[in-house]
Amino acid sequence: MTTEAEPLVRIERDTRGVTTLTLNRPHAFNALSEAMLDALEAALQAVERDDASRAIVLAASGRAFCAGHDLREMRAQPSEEYYRALFGQCSRVMMAIQRVPVPVIARVQGIATAAGCQLVAMCDLAVAAEDARFAVSGVNLGLFCSTPSVALSRNLPRKAAFEMLVTGDFIDARRAQAQGLVNRVAPADQLDAEVERLVASILAKPRVAVAMGKQLFYRQLERGMAAAYDDAAATMACNMMDAAALEGVQAFIDKRPPDWASKH
Amino acid sequence: MTTEAEPLVRIERDTRGVTTLTLNRPHAFNALSEAMLDALEAALQAVERDDASRAIVLAASGRAFCAGHDLREMRAQPSEEYYRALFGQCSRVMMAIQRVPVPVIARVQGIATAAGCQLVAMCDLAVAAEDARFAVSGVNLGLFCSTPSVALSRNLPRKAAFEMLVTGDFIDARRAQAQGLVNRVAPADQLDAEVERLVASILAKPRVAVAMGKQLFYRQLERGMAAAYDDAAATMACNMMDAAALEGVQAFIDKRPPDWASKH
Amino acid sequence: MTTEAEPLVRIERDTRGVTTLTLNRPHAFNALSEAMLDALEAALQAVERDDASRAIVLAASGRAFCAGHDLREMRAQPSEEYYRALFGQCSRVMMAIQRVPVPVIARVQGIATAAGCQLVAMCDLAVAAEDARFAVSGVNLGLFCSTPSVALSRNLPRKAAFEMLVTGDFIDARRAQAQGLVNRVAPADQLDAEVERLVASILAKPRVAVAMGKQLFYRQLERGMAAAYDDAAATMACNMMDAAALEGVQAFIDKRPPDWASKH
Repeated sequence: MTTEAEPLVRIERDTRGVTTLTLNRPHAFNALSEAMLDALEAALQAVERDDASRAIVLAASGRAFCAGHDLREMRAQPSEEYYRALFGQCSRVMMAIQRVPVPVIARVQGIATAAGCQLVAMCDLAVAAEDARFAVSGVNLGLFCSTPSVALSRNLPRKAAFEMLVTGDFIDARRAQAQGLVNRVAPADQLDAEVERLVASILAKPRVAVAMGKQLFYRQLERGMAAAYDDAAATMACNMMDAAALEGVQAFIDKRPPDWASKH
Repeated sequence: MTTEAEPLVRIERDTRGVTTLTLNRPHAFNALSEAMLDALEAALQAVERDDASRAIVLAASGRAFCAGHDLREMRAQPSEEYYRALFGQCSRVMMAIQRVPVPVIARVQGIATAAGCQLVAMCDLAVAAEDARFAVSGVNLGLFCSTPSVALSRNLPRKAAFEMLVTGDFIDARRAQAQGLVNRVAPADQLDAEVERLVASILAKPRVAVAMGKQLFYRQLERGMAAAYDDAAATMACNMMDAAALEGVQAFIDKRPPDWASKH
Repeated sequence: MTTEAEPLVRIERDTRGVTTLTLNRPHAFNALSEAMLDALEAALQAVERDDASRAIVLAASGRAFCAGHDLREMRAQPSEEYYRALFGQCSRVMMAIQRVPVPVIARVQGIATAAGCQLVAMCDLAVAAEDARFAVSGVNLGLFCSTPSVALSRNLPRKAAFEMLVTGDFIDARRAQAQGLVNRVAPADQLDAEVERLVASILAKPRVAVAMGKQLFYRQLERGMAAAYDDAAATMACNMMDAAALEGVQAFIDKRPPDWASKH
């Protein structure tokens, strides 16, 4: 049961600017209902507007990370228009993860399946508990995970992605790491500590450098090498003119820590 | 000697809709002569037209999987027009593997070199015997494997692909798996069983979901993220309207196996 | 101190056509000053014009491979125009590595950071000493390694590249190899021997095949599959008409070594 005290996506922002978004339909394995997707999109947009935000941790309550779409809700409205709108909305949420100017770290326990696996693939970074398992299992029901394939095929080698998509089989956390789907694997009781190490590393950098860098990273991936370099050179020149970079480089020359506290 | 009883490509279709195409010039290490390429293209087109087809296993008779082009035939016609037509024909066969709407699984024993290695790279899935070895060895003869590089560089990391192309060196099955060229490695006497596991997994899914998914998979890989998601969302909406998906999702909700037998 | 006897980039060409370019500012960890970039670009252009060149080894003197840009020089000219020109110049050098028609092998000891790590990523092949370490560490100073990200994200899986870029953390040689940034790792005292093995393998092939192949390799990577195959088929037809390829294929048919010595 969802009340105002129990929102679909729990939003916790700490004083450092780190926002933890927790998918919060544990009894439904955090299935991405329309309302859940709305809540997630709104939460991502709120962080996008928050100039003091520094990082997002995308977490989930209960035993599973996320089991994908809400199949009961989906099945109740069998029209192509409805499905186009639904998958379009889901794709917008996924793109918002890349658009938000702070790094998004998936914190994964239990299963991450179908659009749940896609969420992990779309995050900038991902940390998985040792018992986490990943699948794009829609094909088992006759629904090939086409939108998840966009994210998955940009994380894993081509044949490995196709195998997951056509078999629907699970891979475990270690294999997910070896294949590029997650960055780090930790015992369940050290999952938060491992996520926090990445968060702390991000917080130690100036916000503007990370924001410019993240956005450039995804832009340049879609371009040819020459166009990518043009964009990157312009971005890096702009980044270098920022006070934080000028101070950071000066501090390096002076062999002292940068003084970023006062202005950044 | 090739007779009608011994075609260049042996075609065996079982009652499940699984077609095994066996390259059948074992004494020539299954070299891809023009006639062999014709036979392979025709066989792929036949499966493409067969609405009851479910999967293709691309196998080879004898000790080798495939040693690439038929060099004797190639050398006999030293004209640029001839070579353009030949490599164009070979590329059409390779593209046909991706276009055919059912998954194509390479079953690899012995060596797979040059265009033979390219065949493996172009298949959707690949299973190799433990003793299989892979090389793009044209450069050893002064002929850089340019067309194989298209497939290889989309399977392996960039530097690993370039190393194979410029050295002509073999990699073994385990390395091929680690680098993304094959999905699975099995002892020679379990190669068929391993292929059959993938086949059985594919057969357990509705044909239309796999067909839509395979075609979307390769289309979206060539697009930017936003365009890829537009295509994928439309494809998935269309897939969801299919009777098999509606039944599959309903069965999942009802906690029963889907009843696909009657209609699919 | 740099004198004419101690150029910024030491150029040694052996009788086989192998040019070793050695970054030679060891006390500055071979930082890429404007003058160093100029010297490197000129050296690459000279090899590009040298029709008898066969390979480049990009090496570095001292304990480090390369620590990236010369931060002192960079900090002294805080204008966006200057930085655009600087990063533009650096990108030109990086693109020249890909454009030069012979393979470029990075020989890496010690640290390779920021644009130094980018150099490794841009080379066609890379061999690292066991103690080599790699980082894109600009973000530690508030300057995200945007231009290095272009090269890094085309070598490593996406999440692994992003993690390096946002944390600035080092990875060791074994991890660099597992992730695709380097081809081979050797004990420090066998680094030259390992590089020489790659060089010898390249020298055993006809120059024209390697040149055509290298250039096609990077062109086709930026195209869709169909356009890539068109380009590759035309390139390979052209390559096959070369006397070295005709002789190489004939020699293979005749079961004798090719006679390339007289003409190639």
